[in-house]
Amino acid sequence: MGNLEAAKQTPRFSSRLYTAAEEWWVRSLNHPFVEELGAGTLDPGRFIFYLKQDYLYLLDYARMYAYGSIKASDPDRMAKFAELSYSILHVEMGLHRGYAAKFGISREELDHTPPSPATTAYTGYMLQVAAQGTLAEIVAVILPCMWSYREIGLKLAAGSAAMEHPLYREWVEMYSSSEFGELTDWCIGLMDELAEGLPEQALLKLEEHFVMASKLEYLFWDKAYDREEWPV
Amino acid sequence: MGNLEAAKQTPRFSSRLYTAAEEWWVRSLNHPFVEELGAGTLDPGRFIFYLKQDYLYLLDYARMYAYGSIKASDPDRMAKFAELSYSILHVEMGLHRGYAAKFGISREELDHTPPSPATTAYTGYMLQVAAQGTLAEIVAVILPCMWSYREIGLKLAAGSAAMEHPLYREWVEMYSSSEFGELTDWCIGLMDELAEGLPEQALLKLEEHFVMASKLEYLFWDKAYDREEWPV
Amino acid sequence: MGNLEAAKQTPRFSSRLYTAAEEWWVRSLNHPFVEELGAGTLDPGRFIFYLKQDYLYLLDYARMYAYGSIKASDPDRMAKFAELSYSILHVEMGLHRGYAAKFGISREELDHTPPSPATTAYTGYMLQVAAQGTLAEIVAVILPCMWSYREIGLKLAAGSAAMEHPLYREWVEMYSSSEFGELTDWCIGLMDELAEGLPEQALLKLEEHFVMASKLEYLFWDKAYDREEWPV
Amino acid sequence: MGNLEAAKQTPRFSSRLYTAAEEWWVRSLNHPFVEELGAGTLDPGRFIFYLKQDYLYLLDYARMYAYGSIKASDPDRMAKFAELSYSILHVEMGLHRGYAAKFGISREELDHTPPSPATTAYTGYMLQVAAQGTLAEIVAVILPCMWSYREIGLKLAAGSAAMEHPLYREWVEMYSSSEFGELTDWCIGLMDELAEGLPEQALLKLEEHFVMASKLEYLFWDKAYDREEWPV
Repeated sequence: MGNLEAAKQTPRFSSRLYTAAEEWWVRSLNHPFVEELGAGTLDPGRFIFYLKQDYLYLLDYARMYAYGSIKASDPDRMAKFAELSYSILHVEMGLHRGYAAKFGISREELDHTPPSPATTAYTGYMLQVAAQGTLAEIVAVILPCMWSYREIGLKLAAGSAAMEHPLYREWVEMYSSSEFGELTDWCIGLMDELAEGLPEQALLKLEEHFVMASKLEYLFWDKAYDREEWPV
Repeated sequence: MGNLEAAKQTPRFSSRLYTAAEEWWVRSLNHPFVEELGAGTLDPGRFIFYLKQDYLYLLDYARMYAYGSIKASDPDRMAKFAELSYSILHVEMGLHRGYAAKFGISREELDHTPPSPATTAYTGYMLQVAAQGTLAEIVAVILPCMWSYREIGLKLAAGSAAMEHPLYREWVEMYSSSEFGELTDWCIGLMDELAEGLPEQALLKLEEHFVMASKLEYLFWDKAYDREEWPV
Repeated sequence: MGNLEAAKQTPRFSSRLYTAAEEWWVRSLNHPFVEELGAGTLDPGRFIFYLKQDYLYLLDYARMYAYGSIKASDPDRMAKFAELSYSILHVEMGLHRGYAAKFGISREELDHTPPSPATTAYTGYMLQVAAQGTLAEIVAVILPCMWSYREIGLKLAAGSAAMEHPLYREWVEMYSSSEFGELTDWCIGLMDELAEGLPEQALLKLEEHFVMASKLEYLFWDKAYDREEWPV
Repeated sequence: MGNLEAAKQTPRFSSRLYTAAEEWWVRSLNHPFVEELGAGTLDPGRFIFYLKQDYLYLLDYARMYAYGSIKASDPDRMAKFAELSYSILHVEMGLHRGYAAKFGISREELDHTPPSPATTAYTGYMLQVAAQGTLAEIVAVILPCMWSYREIGLKLAAGSAAMEHPLYREWVEMYSSSEFGELTDWCIGLMDELAEGLPEQALLKLEEHFVMASKLEYLFWDKAYDREEWPV
């Protein structure tokens, strides 16, 4: 968490974002889902619910990067977003499918999972921002997922029982890896760059998106823990 | 409800949609929120929660018609969608603000209402379909709100105690009015026109949107009844 | 033109835009199309070519306002854009059709006019900016048409022979009217508001759009004069 | 050209498209730009104009694939479009820059080339279709470039003097390569798949896009030959 401490000591816009959303991040870090995952005691049924919804989420997360590639005006930035969209769809989705298979979930099952209300809220919000907003707004909306996963990954990797778990270990390793850390740093740095010089009104909008996405992250954990489907 | 009966007896695509979503419409019609509204016994606190979220919803509902105007290729259809977008923003929003004032809710308060998870899910879903989909998909997503409100309006208007209620009466009158009925008929007719000749795969997608929007309608009532904010 | 002089003396962003595009506006004002229109000597064949292409343009111009209504975040601004979209499609298009009829062009003919290369370039550019850009970018792209038409309208109305012409007079009256002038003032004012506080990089992008739209305006006149269709 | 003959003998939708646009393809194949390129006699100044505009075009062509990835609903198709967007931005753009360098054009110069009217028309049209249309419409708009380049590449590779030219040879090799041929086959096949079962009205719209993009291809050659900038 030294990383976050550092971020908070500088006047970077990303630090302001972090502070604005901190209460939701603390809630996520301390949520039973995350705590039990760290303790290796999480009911696999809850994790499976999460994995299946996360698969749907990832598809739309890839769309966010495609939108980023469209809305970026600099060719190098366009290329970076296209690379990430490609990598989510060609690498991450494959890992996800392989990992899900270890829990007995087939690709067929993944492809036919109906989105829960929490997933619908999160992906709908993201995509609407991407369709209507600027590149900076897109980054403000995709960053909380990435950044908070790194926080969670690093916390769970630091001596937690999850590292002994036959299946959860892989999840923790992914999000505590140095590659994932570098990707997160890139995304934080980009947020700072894109926010530079923007008037307060625009910064407020970015903050609003960042906080909303952080709330949706928390909702995602919370509703996965409850395996919440549609009410009847 | 003779109207629905008629629809079900013809091979119109809208009848297929109705049948596919019927279970959710029945749930909405029988939901305590709607039943107590009809009985005039609904706790005003629940209704106020609904009104404030519905105000946010209406803004994005107007955006749906603006998208419709952009995606329509026929000038007359473009004009009709622009008219409806205009009328939501200039007429309905005004009525909504005036009606909310009777419950002691100021415009200020309406404008600063944070969207609940259920509202976020509904509006995000709609706008994402509008940004990515066809005019037919847009209509499939805006129709359940309109059509099910007419059903509810007509049911409550038919001898219910709501008509004696000093405030709920106005709501029921709006959605049971002949103007609103004609608008709904136009929208149903347009759905049928746009679906004509489409291959089964495209019809399935329209059905999926229609059912999803019907589920989101039900979620909206259900969560308004519970006044559900973000979990903490 | 005192209006422009005034604009140039203040540090408003719109003045910067005007200065950046001025060379193209001067070219438009002095183009044979505009000069001969003012002298009442313009070959009706050239004007008819223009009218038919302008009809296609107006349809997409209405789409620009629909996009504005979607991308505005303030309800009153949303409503204003929806009103303008409505008014273009319900009022202006009707006037346009009636006016075209006086030149012997039927609605049928208008609806089946194939877009020329110049129209394709202009409408394609506008719509792409609207789909990918911000509200400020949308305004930067719709403003040159409105503002330069007012300049042309006022110039031609000031003692020009066009006012004696049985058909061209109507055109000049429309764009020199006080209603049109007020609309233009609103649009200029909105541009200034939206540009306030933006960093130089964002202002440069707005300027780029404004200049490009001004070049496309000039191209539109120039190619209408030549009645330029697709090369073969 | 046996390939095209084959296509014309089957009832595939792509054959219908080819027939509808054939006159424009013939014009492109016989245009002085293409003929002189094949004869190795093309003025390098004309080719340089083309290369610089084509660089701008490629950036937006990559955006078309990003849109395709967003609008595809099948994960494998999404992945394929993301791969192509990635490959245009990471591989093709690099080749393009290296190739341009051989003509003495720096990356700096490429990045600061102002779009010509013909490029503006083509990219604007494409992106507007991508923003407003379906995946099938996107494919109808990106296909003419790819398919006609293969035709031109194969024609020029078949014993033409271009293969002796120190610089033009590379261009011909690229577009007559088997990799490029396979990509084109994939795109044609996808067009056929996506058109399957669509009603005539939708097919007509696809045809309209395909013909328009073919006209814009021709315009691109024609205006590059004339090195046409903005009129003054």
